[in-house]
Amino acid sequence: MSQDTESSKDPLILFMPSGKRGRFPLGTPLIDAARELGVYVESVCGGRGICGRCQIEVQEGQFAKHGITSSNAHISELGPKEIRYAELRELRDGRRLSCSSTVQGDLVIDIPQDLQINAQVVRKADDGRIIARNPAVHLCYVEVPEPDMHQPLGDLDRLKIVLAKEWGWDNLDVDPKIFAVVQSILEKGDWSVTAVIHEEVEGGRAIITGIYPGLKNEAYGIACDIGSTTIAMHLVSLLSGMTLASSGASNPQIRFGEDLMSRVSYVMMNPDGREAMTDAVRATLNELIGNVCKDAEIDREDIHNLVFVGNPVMHHLFLGIDPTPLGGAPFALAVSSAVHIYARDLDLNANEGAQVYILPCIAGHVGADAAAVALCEGPHRQDNMMLVVDVGTNAEIILGNRERVVAASSPTGPAFEGAEISCGQRAAPGAIERVRIDKDTLEPKIRIIGVEKWSDEEGFDEEAKAIGITGVCGSAIIEVVAEMYLTGIISEDGVVDGSLSAKSDRIIEDGRTHAYVLWRGDVELVIKQTDIRAIQLAKSALYAGIKLLMEKRGIEQVDSISFAGAFGTFIDPKYAMVLGLIPDCDLTKVKAVGNAAGTGAKMTLLNRSYRREIEELVQNIEKIETALEPKFQEHFVNAMAMPNKIDAFPNLGKIVDLPEKSATPSSGRRRRRARSQ
Amino acid sequence: MSQDTESSKDPLILFMPSGKRGRFPLGTPLIDAARELGVYVESVCGGRGICGRCQIEVQEGQFAKHGITSSNAHISELGPKEIRYAELRELRDGRRLSCSSTVQGDLVIDIPQDLQINAQVVRKADDGRIIARNPAVHLCYVEVPEPDMHQPLGDLDRLKIVLAKEWGWDNLDVDPKIFAVVQSILEKGDWSVTAVIHEEVEGGRAIITGIYPGLKNEAYGIACDIGSTTIAMHLVSLLSGMTLASSGASNPQIRFGEDLMSRVSYVMMNPDGREAMTDAVRATLNELIGNVCKDAEIDREDIHNLVFVGNPVMHHLFLGIDPTPLGGAPFALAVSSAVHIYARDLDLNANEGAQVYILPCIAGHVGADAAAVALCEGPHRQDNMMLVVDVGTNAEIILGNRERVVAASSPTGPAFEGAEISCGQRAAPGAIERVRIDKDTLEPKIRIIGVEKWSDEEGFDEEAKAIGITGVCGSAIIEVVAEMYLTGIISEDGVVDGSLSAKSDRIIEDGRTHAYVLWRGDVELVIKQTDIRAIQLAKSALYAGIKLLMEKRGIEQVDSISFAGAFGTFIDPKYAMVLGLIPDCDLTKVKAVGNAAGTGAKMTLLNRSYRREIEELVQNIEKIETALEPKFQEHFVNAMAMPNKIDAFPNLGKIVDLPEKSATPSSGRRRRRARSQ
Repeated sequence: MSQDTESSKDPLILFMPSGKRGRFPLGTPLIDAARELGVYVESVCGGRGICGRCQIEVQEGQFAKHGITSSNAHISELGPKEIRYAELRELRDGRRLSCSSTVQGDLVIDIPQDLQINAQVVRKADDGRIIARNPAVHLCYVEVPEPDMHQPLGDLDRLKIVLAKEWGWDNLDVDPKIFAVVQSILEKGDWSVTAVIHEEVEGGRAIITGIYPGLKNEAYGIACDIGSTTIAMHLVSLLSGMTLASSGASNPQIRFGEDLMSRVSYVMMNPDGREAMTDAVRATLNELIGNVCKDAEIDREDIHNLVFVGNPVMHHLFLGIDPTPLGGAPFALAVSSAVHIYARDLDLNANEGAQVYILPCIAGHVGADAAAVALCEGPHRQDNMMLVVDVGTNAEIILGNRERVVAASSPTGPAFEGAEISCGQRAAPGAIERVRIDKDTLEPKIRIIGVEKWSDEEGFDEEAKAIGITGVCGSAIIEVVAEMYLTGIISEDGVVDGSLSAKSDRIIEDGRTHAYVLWRGDVELVIKQTDIRAIQLAKSALYAGIKLLMEKRGIEQVDSISFAGAFGTFIDPKYAMVLGLIPDCDLTKVKAVGNAAGTGAKMTLLNRSYRREIEELVQNIEKIETALEPKFQEHFVNAMAMPNKIDAFPNLGKIVDLPEKSATPSSGRRRRRARSQ
Repeated sequence: MSQDTESSKDPLILFMPSGKRGRFPLGTPLIDAARELGVYVESVCGGRGICGRCQIEVQEGQFAKHGITSSNAHISELGPKEIRYAELRELRDGRRLSCSSTVQGDLVIDIPQDLQINAQVVRKADDGRIIARNPAVHLCYVEVPEPDMHQPLGDLDRLKIVLAKEWGWDNLDVDPKIFAVVQSILEKGDWSVTAVIHEEVEGGRAIITGIYPGLKNEAYGIACDIGSTTIAMHLVSLLSGMTLASSGASNPQIRFGEDLMSRVSYVMMNPDGREAMTDAVRATLNELIGNVCKDAEIDREDIHNLVFVGNPVMHHLFLGIDPTPLGGAPFALAVSSAVHIYARDLDLNANEGAQVYILPCIAGHVGADAAAVALCEGPHRQDNMMLVVDVGTNAEIILGNRERVVAASSPTGPAFEGAEISCGQRAAPGAIERVRIDKDTLEPKIRIIGVEKWSDEEGFDEEAKAIGITGVCGSAIIEVVAEMYLTGIISEDGVVDGSLSAKSDRIIEDGRTHAYVLWRGDVELVIKQTDIRAIQLAKSALYAGIKLLMEKRGIEQVDSISFAGAFGTFIDPKYAMVLGLIPDCDLTKVKAVGNAAGTGAKMTLLNRSYRREIEELVQNIEKIETALEPKFQEHFVNAMAMPNKIDAFPNLGKIVDLPEKSATPSSGRRRRRARSQ
């Protein structure tokens, strides 16, 4: 590149959409110009004009702002390589191969965003997030010199030499599995092969993990979240960054134990329990890999990189590690840092040399899934104070900003998922998902999954009858308890007001307590005092954990709240706040972020620099073990009330009419202050 | 260390036998003083006084030459660690632990050469060679902090941190197999473990390949030469350098084919042939590992490093690579450079994390065994011009000095091993191994394997009868043909002089040719004209290869000749020269070097810097493919005569009476010169 001065006679090249520009001598290949300016142009074939990944387009016209007149006359004429490529594959009108065309005058060059053909620099995740593409897997096409008796180097050795010479890979390691196949692949490719090179850390150790005969123009990856209940998998093109297929399955370990603790117990009680659960989850993963490959019509042999996240017990069982120590204090992880391992060593069926990356675990209760959530939401990339909550059987809580991030796990139990609730059920057609209670009549209206209408709308009864109303799902339990509180059916302490039975027949006696009949139909769905208690326990555990982190971080207010996971997707933030699951916050800054763990996994799959980012973050996160914090118990007790007796909810107060409190938040704060003096 | 000046008041410490010296402040631990001076003192426990490997002895007395008065009063008194060690294990009188004793005055310190206890710096190989000890395997004892909920790092992560802190291992990689066992081993060792760390290249990538509970004070290695006929294995202590056991076995691949080419053919003809031979050799290696472990009474789980050498076909079959391309031009190796691989990936039963190193192959006919021979003999370390010959079915020839080394393989065929000879047999009791023929009577005298006496000595007949004379072994075939030439029974062209049948009844008719009856007894052993031809073909192939290398190297004379392998051990160099197997040389500089391939393997096992040395040498060796050299055929024809028609043998002429030649060597040279003009 020459100096971009007025006096320079070299043509000016402007690359769009990045706007990067520079002057280059006549005859410079455009791919060289792009790379010199740091414009990412993919190439698998090393400039031989056969992979077609380096396509560009010339924009014609006057670009007054830049002082350029760009024209197809300013680029070299279609050369033999491009003509051959156009014949063999397809070169759309106006498209050129940047490796085979040269600068002949000022040019404005467009890097097409047409992903299927030309790998682009950035890729949007499902939620619109931008993921810059920088995978650990590289495809490098080379022509290997034939054997020479005067220089009797091995086939593999000559391959390594040409990879060093043409692609700059020095000191390549080799997967020993390659030894036995290198001859036949070279022969099949007539001495031309595409090497798959895995470089985990940029400039670090690089390994030849595979070889294909001839040109190989595709490589795929897997991003997978191994949840205790559900396993979600995505198939991603490592060259285009596109998600090509997704699939999910129940975690087969459920048959050994519904929740984490019962699975740990199963291992403790059964000598082969760990192995059985390891085998089960790996078998399901292999099935899922088969499913996504079938959907995308690709060969599983073309999968070269797999990223997994999961909570610590899932993480250990997947790796074949005994999770028993995670079942009790000190909740010791066997391995906490990121794991690099061959997929074959985990019995996963993908390319023979495929590499697995597993994100680091944060602590004994805060796993690689939480790390992925943290990476995805990125409190450490922000000035704002961000609270990230992922609710499952445990709630993982991450709080912080650029300066410092703290994390903990709160033992919420499974109430939020509908377990431990008498009329609770998983989210499925026929489950009540929305509830409103009239303040005057105490009559409810509901919505069920599978029917668009509310129960007071015309036609609801017929549609509901067809599906059958069966129970209350997790998100609706939050709503019904919150509505009961807002309508005075329960007190701030969660006690059903039996005196209201005079006013409404929905308030009924239930042993020594009272209950609320939410639905009367083929089934009767009753919210019992014990159900309310279960929700109170769960929400106060969550809130106590959040409060603890806020204190550790020295703040009284968060700027934003991200609800990760399925639970966050379905609950209404307003009701979460009414119940006091989360602290007061501008409701417009409370958002459900979906499967943030899966997105985090995908980020590290597509861009290895995210791996370094999360590894560093996890090292620096301050881990809080709630069980060790004396304050946790105190917060827990004070958070039982609704919203709670710890904090005020000014933002919430602007939206809903909160009942008057017996002990005001301010008095709660006074009490604590008094005690700490 | 303080400056060693007159004014310094610090005590002077002199280490023997190295003679390294320096002044150190009072109270300096002696292990620190030793290390600062570069005196190698082993330690597994990191100075905790429990491994006992850092033992030293104080020499008492006046050392006038060094100006030191050394005394046990100048070392700290026996401390609690040493007393505990002496109680638990044994601390011989006068021995001290250098990690636990300090400088209290001038000292002369002896590093005991008592190998069993204190690893020494250097080790003599079986042939008296010195091998400096610098293995790729390190044992590091550490006490790992217990799990801490406030710092919830994984067990493995805390282990890595303490290995970095106490032993300086940064960025340790981990064998993924460790994940599943780290918890239980830490528990078993009560948080104290010995890590096995494999560092192939000094300062390069280091991997935790194993963990033992508590202190582990031993680590072993295997050096093995996989010959086409015989496999020879040695078990070596990586800490002391001692060879503890050796074992050998026939190569089980013999049942698939006697020689290399027939095994390659077997693979070509049988779809499962490669796999069958790979499985067979690996099974035998596992048996041999069992044997040497049993002999040395060690556990095979304590073997952490294995080095293998072998010719290219053995190398490929061992690695599971199809050797077919080695069967014909261009004799292409799949892998030529050194191989690093887990032993488990080769189905070898040793420690789970044991690492295999295989020396590089030089060319398609010149394997890792030849590389080991080159490393052992070290022409590249000398100023003298050294010829190294390893005779098997092929002869590997290496020639050169510090400046440049050339190598080739000559197709001698199996005649030297007794095959293709009518009365030939392998070396075994009852085989004729020495022959002398009386010049006047043409009567032979012989010696057989298993009997000390010559056949003309009293008592030979009885002893020989007990064993039974069965055939002629390879080394004796050389002798008998050479003696036949020296006594005029055969001409310089190898033709049996039938007219001598008038003089001796040992000259008999044999079809159109004549033969010599070497032995008459229960069996009649006859040297036929075809036997002599077979030896002539073999020896001329060898000589032609040597001559080619001498020309490539531009020399007419070699300074020394090393005969590697079993063949070299048994033949008499004089007769080898009479027959013209080797060029003229001072006979005192011709030596048999035994299993140089095995010694070379052992060198790389004990000292990884030899690995780098041979890798570099192999890259720089000039490889000559005899099949491609027009001169080879010419030399081959001219070398058929005895000694040959190429060179003169002035050194040989001083020792034996060579018969007159029909065409003198000088005329032979003239001929060639005339042709090349």
